[in-house]
Amino acid sequence: MKSHHNTTTPDTHPHVVIIGAGFGGLQAALALGKKQPALQMTVIDRTNHHLFQPLLYQVATAALSPADISTPIRHVLRKQKNTVVIMSEVTGIDVEQKRVIMHHGSITYDYLIVATGAHENYFGHIESWKPLAPGLKNLEDAQEVRRKLLVAFEQAEIETDPERIQQLLTFAVVGGGPTGVELAGAIAELAFKTLIPEFRHIDPTMIHILLIEALPQILGAFPAELSNKAKRELQKLGVDLRLNTPVEEITTDGVIARDEWIPASTVIWTAGVQASEAGKWLNTETDRAGRVKVLPDLTLPAHPEIFVLGDTATLMQDGKPLPGVAPVAMQQGRYVASVIEQRLANQQPGAPFRYHDKGYMATVGRAFAIVRIGKIRSAGFLAWLLWLTVHIIYLIGYENRLIVLLQWSWSYLSFQRRVRIITRSAWLALSRKKKAESGKHGGPR
Amino acid sequence: MKSHHNTTTPDTHPHVVIIGAGFGGLQAALALGKKQPALQMTVIDRTNHHLFQPLLYQVATAALSPADISTPIRHVLRKQKNTVVIMSEVTGIDVEQKRVIMHHGSITYDYLIVATGAHENYFGHIESWKPLAPGLKNLEDAQEVRRKLLVAFEQAEIETDPERIQQLLTFAVVGGGPTGVELAGAIAELAFKTLIPEFRHIDPTMIHILLIEALPQILGAFPAELSNKAKRELQKLGVDLRLNTPVEEITTDGVIARDEWIPASTVIWTAGVQASEAGKWLNTETDRAGRVKVLPDLTLPAHPEIFVLGDTATLMQDGKPLPGVAPVAMQQGRYVASVIEQRLANQQPGAPFRYHDKGYMATVGRAFAIVRIGKIRSAGFLAWLLWLTVHIIYLIGYENRLIVLLQWSWSYLSFQRRVRIITRSAWLALSRKKKAESGKHGGPR
Repeated sequence: MKSHHNTTTPDTHPHVVIIGAGFGGLQAALALGKKQPALQMTVIDRTNHHLFQPLLYQVATAALSPADISTPIRHVLRKQKNTVVIMSEVTGIDVEQKRVIMHHGSITYDYLIVATGAHENYFGHIESWKPLAPGLKNLEDAQEVRRKLLVAFEQAEIETDPERIQQLLTFAVVGGGPTGVELAGAIAELAFKTLIPEFRHIDPTMIHILLIEALPQILGAFPAELSNKAKRELQKLGVDLRLNTPVEEITTDGVIARDEWIPASTVIWTAGVQASEAGKWLNTETDRAGRVKVLPDLTLPAHPEIFVLGDTATLMQDGKPLPGVAPVAMQQGRYVASVIEQRLANQQPGAPFRYHDKGYMATVGRAFAIVRIGKIRSAGFLAWLLWLTVHIIYLIGYENRLIVLLQWSWSYLSFQRRVRIITRSAWLALSRKKKAESGKHGGPR
Repeated sequence: MKSHHNTTTPDTHPHVVIIGAGFGGLQAALALGKKQPALQMTVIDRTNHHLFQPLLYQVATAALSPADISTPIRHVLRKQKNTVVIMSEVTGIDVEQKRVIMHHGSITYDYLIVATGAHENYFGHIESWKPLAPGLKNLEDAQEVRRKLLVAFEQAEIETDPERIQQLLTFAVVGGGPTGVELAGAIAELAFKTLIPEFRHIDPTMIHILLIEALPQILGAFPAELSNKAKRELQKLGVDLRLNTPVEEITTDGVIARDEWIPASTVIWTAGVQASEAGKWLNTETDRAGRVKVLPDLTLPAHPEIFVLGDTATLMQDGKPLPGVAPVAMQQGRYVASVIEQRLANQQPGAPFRYHDKGYMATVGRAFAIVRIGKIRSAGFLAWLLWLTVHIIYLIGYENRLIVLLQWSWSYLSFQRRVRIITRSAWLALSRKKKAESGKHGGPR
């Protein structure tokens, strides 16, 4: 690494290293950048962009382009002259030497903020299930899901075997949290409103969209009256809800849901969350989902210079663990920045972190959302307008906001989804798979 | 295939099959769809979208998203109820049986329109050079170029070896036609205006953008006074023009241009065009670039039911071959539709095809273009406004037009390019390459 990343010499400013530029890491970087020019900061991420994950399902269903929900990290931080952004992959942390080890080198820190997020939890089946059932955590996931959805329709259009058509037009979303619900609703709209009018041979009654949830209720974080309304709305859109239905197996041809075999060419996994490897790097205690157990000021026991936050950390508040949602990570990011400021100013430590719950929302289809804000509960069109407003406001970049708003307005009026791209490689990949399969069924027709 | 694709039974309408939904194929499909409900039509393409190729360089340089210049073919043709769109890859044509053979099946035709376009001509080096120096013919090419450009800057930011930095920041565009000129100009803007202000360690004087052309002049299709102006404009943007300079070799580390070794991590090939395989499928005479020699009515000798057009065909007009540009293909598409209409109406054959040259244009950087319309020649800002207007008008889809215009306005004012996405896979791919190389240079630092 370059020597100016090295802050072990006493005559330089203290060096804050932030791993991960998701909601938590980016808020910490912005807060520290605004108030603390008297420090050096390095932000490390394995991509070059901050991703607005709550709208990934709209990329997956061809309503938005990847760029609409992504902003280059160094663009967001461009005015902070004390901040260096590095695109690299962290492979370990040496807490004794205060050093972060990356693919291409290493870097020392005085303060470390670990905000590396989470990925899907396949509950022990990651190697066998992930290649068959992508999740929805990053742009590559979203583009993979989009490809699968669009290609399934193209294949169904030219297929003659009714069983194969049924399988191609069966879309199974596993997991009834906000991501699964939003995705299933959007798939229903994509299928029935956007695609069906443009295909000549597909029988709409063959389309089968399932939302499979192991628990007795979807959207468990919401009050039952709201999640019941979301449930009815999903059913109105044509989504087949399977509650109390754990997925037992996923194959190339479908899923076993409880004891039923469901042939499905597209299976998407949104059923659980596993924290990043940070717990291993830090060699510290985690919960079952790999989340690092932090002290009330978000530091590690015995390492006051290391902060862990967002989906990578677990912290109890009022007897319950904090949920893995963007507002928690963002508030924690700003909190950590304030703790570091206090320390640098040699002030007394402030209060422990406390999450201020401003509410929850989830959307179902094109004009329906459920919202809980404090004691207020709302479901329907007005809730959806609120959902829309909040998501536009929290998107980073004026141009992104404008373009997303424009595309949503257009989609709302026309039912169109403009990002329906299948490239030739995608086609060739599916064609190889198809050939292998038709060979299996007794040779090409 | 489904039986309703089969038109050999005499009681159905004649069946027109169009291979390729580029400018030529799509115009033919639209023209036939409007005037001829009394025929069946099948459009086959190996992707699902019509691509506005003239703006691919803007996708490659992160100014536009892929969806902004792509429209699903079946969306464009959705109102033509007699038209079926098939996403499949054609592998051959049986001219005796009047049958098109695809990956997944075959289909018979009464009339066949072959509009399969062209790809880069690597002049005998396609296998060794194409993986090292992508072209710019489809969305995958454009995304590959974008990835290479963006990753080069990210790598240069964390690199310490000056020689390696120089190599990373050297971008060689081979071919001084409109695509090469537009791309080189856009790379200069991306590098100097958009990226440099956001990087902390890159020395702008290390950035080296080359445009390498074997002939003594760039933009050879334009009058010399215009191409000279474009040349000066490119040089003003910081592009190093190498004329009379054939590329002799491309390696993973750079290019040999005439006799000079130029270390460059990014080489892009826009130097020549090779027609699709249609000539082989049809077993008919072609020119050296593989273009099918057609009769003046764009049919094949001895096969009046087969039309070949656009970049796949070659036809002389006033002693010169027609150029491989979008307006030629579009006019040919509409012409072929009119010939088929005449035949179906049992009318006398009309006049042979004649290209009406409405002019040429090419753009250099953000506010400069050269335009030739008949005897009118113009260079500068007004020509650029005209370029912009024409490109917006010819884009398909109102929403695409609006969004492209919005992004161009934004980029014009802010110098921003918003589609700067590097995903983790891209990063890992480069990281593996980097590791292999640093191994070569004597182990990782």
